[in-house]
Amino acid sequence: MSQPFETLSWHGDRFGSLHMIDQTLLPTEIKIIECKNVETVWEAIKMLRVRGAPAIGIAAAYGVCIGIQDLPADANHEMLRWRLHDVADYLASSRPTAVNLFWALDRMKEKAETFWATKSVPEIQEILFAEAKTIHEEDRHICRSIGRFGQELVEDGSTWLTHCNAGGLATADYGTALAVFFAATESGKKIQVYADETRPLLQGARLTAWELMQRGIDVTVICDSMAALVMRQGTASACVAKSDRRRKIDGVVVGADRISANGDTANKIGTYGLAVLAKAHDVPFYVAAPVSTFDLSLADGSGIPIEERDADEICCGFGKRTAPEGVNVYNPAFDVTPADLIAGIITERGIITPVNRYNVEKMVNG
Amino acid sequence: MSQPFETLSWHGDRFGSLHMIDQTLLPTEIKIIECKNVETVWEAIKMLRVRGAPAIGIAAAYGVCIGIQDLPADANHEMLRWRLHDVADYLASSRPTAVNLFWALDRMKEKAETFWATKSVPEIQEILFAEAKTIHEEDRHICRSIGRFGQELVEDGSTWLTHCNAGGLATADYGTALAVFFAATESGKKIQVYADETRPLLQGARLTAWELMQRGIDVTVICDSMAALVMRQGTASACVAKSDRRRKIDGVVVGADRISANGDTANKIGTYGLAVLAKAHDVPFYVAAPVSTFDLSLADGSGIPIEERDADEICCGFGKRTAPEGVNVYNPAFDVTPADLIAGIITERGIITPVNRYNVEKMVNG
Repeated sequence: MSQPFETLSWHGDRFGSLHMIDQTLLPTEIKIIECKNVETVWEAIKMLRVRGAPAIGIAAAYGVCIGIQDLPADANHEMLRWRLHDVADYLASSRPTAVNLFWALDRMKEKAETFWATKSVPEIQEILFAEAKTIHEEDRHICRSIGRFGQELVEDGSTWLTHCNAGGLATADYGTALAVFFAATESGKKIQVYADETRPLLQGARLTAWELMQRGIDVTVICDSMAALVMRQGTASACVAKSDRRRKIDGVVVGADRISANGDTANKIGTYGLAVLAKAHDVPFYVAAPVSTFDLSLADGSGIPIEERDADEICCGFGKRTAPEGVNVYNPAFDVTPADLIAGIITERGIITPVNRYNVEKMVNG
Repeated sequence: MSQPFETLSWHGDRFGSLHMIDQTLLPTEIKIIECKNVETVWEAIKMLRVRGAPAIGIAAAYGVCIGIQDLPADANHEMLRWRLHDVADYLASSRPTAVNLFWALDRMKEKAETFWATKSVPEIQEILFAEAKTIHEEDRHICRSIGRFGQELVEDGSTWLTHCNAGGLATADYGTALAVFFAATESGKKIQVYADETRPLLQGARLTAWELMQRGIDVTVICDSMAALVMRQGTASACVAKSDRRRKIDGVVVGADRISANGDTANKIGTYGLAVLAKAHDVPFYVAAPVSTFDLSLADGSGIPIEERDADEICCGFGKRTAPEGVNVYNPAFDVTPADLIAGIITERGIITPVNRYNVEKMVNG
């Protein structure tokens, strides 16, 4: 299946520009931003026009290439080094909490370090451009590989549920959780997906539903509070009328922001509740994430801080006030799902199952 | 505690008008609609300016009084009867699915039936006005009584969670689920309440939070997907950092739309999932509802049809499209919580616990 859209793409050789979908306008408008200068890249990251850890890293790496491409033809090593660090510092200020942003900028700077003595300025520029393309390409391979392992869990005719957006819009290619659905579909399986709208920012309704539709996958949007009922339908419970027994969720797949050494998984708020509901309905619950998501320095999930975000995301999220002025609001951005609720973690190297300290260590460290 | 607002109030003697809060404008604007003619009452019910089964019934009963009050002084019985039925039919067309609307209109018509032969036209008008006031007063007593029984479950310093709005705005007085909190506060207990915002129509954020603030109760709005995390906090789980262990939910109380003979309870979508989560976190889950909510003709919850509502409530709920054009949407208005997840049903006659067929029958019929 060819990509129906490209979250990020480079146009031209090393004197080129970065094109990206403006994700803030989705799903009502598909607008491509052409970044020809580093300020446009900075603004796009800052304003969440590009989002998702891998996608931010890739944008930043290309941003560095853009920032150093207009040096004068006779620029010396000192000028390049100064420009490189200046551009990296500037881009780093766009979203100071995005771990992948720093990771990508550091990788670009380190790459240059090894060649100051041996290569010319144009050669180093070329090497850095190649490095950005490598970062991009590596992420594409990771997505494909997660998809390949994950799709083995998916039966033809099955119905799945996902939360938030762990799709192509967050990565170079086809995402992590959504990669599983895309790969299953590519291998000829027909599936149905329920997408939680994912309050407060509605990434499920706005982005996941859009991506799945773009690839012709049967997707149904529900409010987060409806997942329990959908899981219960298809059962012979006395609380479900016979006429409603048409739905059945065969599995849940979500992405991850950070995974501790024992497999406890931080992800978008609502994930933990969904995992509890899945357990109660005997629905297997999977996490899909690259190996880079594991933080083995954390023994368990209690070490992962829960970021609290602005009250207005809940109270004024749609340009209209929907809760009383001055009311208390609690807006945690993430929650942590304990490993014992997770049937498996799908990585680019294979599936960790059962999820425990031993199996995590084996997969991550080899 | 005196009422800080009146959802519905009659002003004047039988030649008076009905005042009601326009609930569609809450919480940003408090506007009182003065209904001097039956068309205004009809429009208010139709447009959900007044909502909640008991409140709709009361509004309709007063609507009948308004509809018959401008008959000429020399009107005969025939003219009154014709007008009475005409007005009732007209009001019945405002929300054809609201059971309480028909119940109230039928009760008004039946009241008149008994007096055609023995009373004068002005006397019957007076009797019907008294009947509307009785319907109003009865509901007030039911709310107070539910509050009185329910508050015994509430400890000083405890924290509760509720879903949707089962408060004073839906009834004549102080609601059903919220009555428990109001009565506890009146008896001097200090409590905290978490209010689920309740997608898609946000009755929790818009109405419940507003009502609790009006009465000075400490309320915090959360998205529906955050309830699981809030329940987990306050536990010693490895997935909750020590610094986050400040919250603890001591109990959940919700309202009900319909309860079957075995105690299975239909209520706003999201209630069932919340009950499953409460069970998983050892949090007692209560339903508060008047005896009139029980439908003993239904053996269990599978007989309760799940109304599906318009997709736009989810996709365009805030005046702005938030999901792709043409996407599938599933929008069930209710779900059914099985009796075995309910610790008790708080009625105006006492608390049904444990919730089973025998105890329901005993409370409702004898």
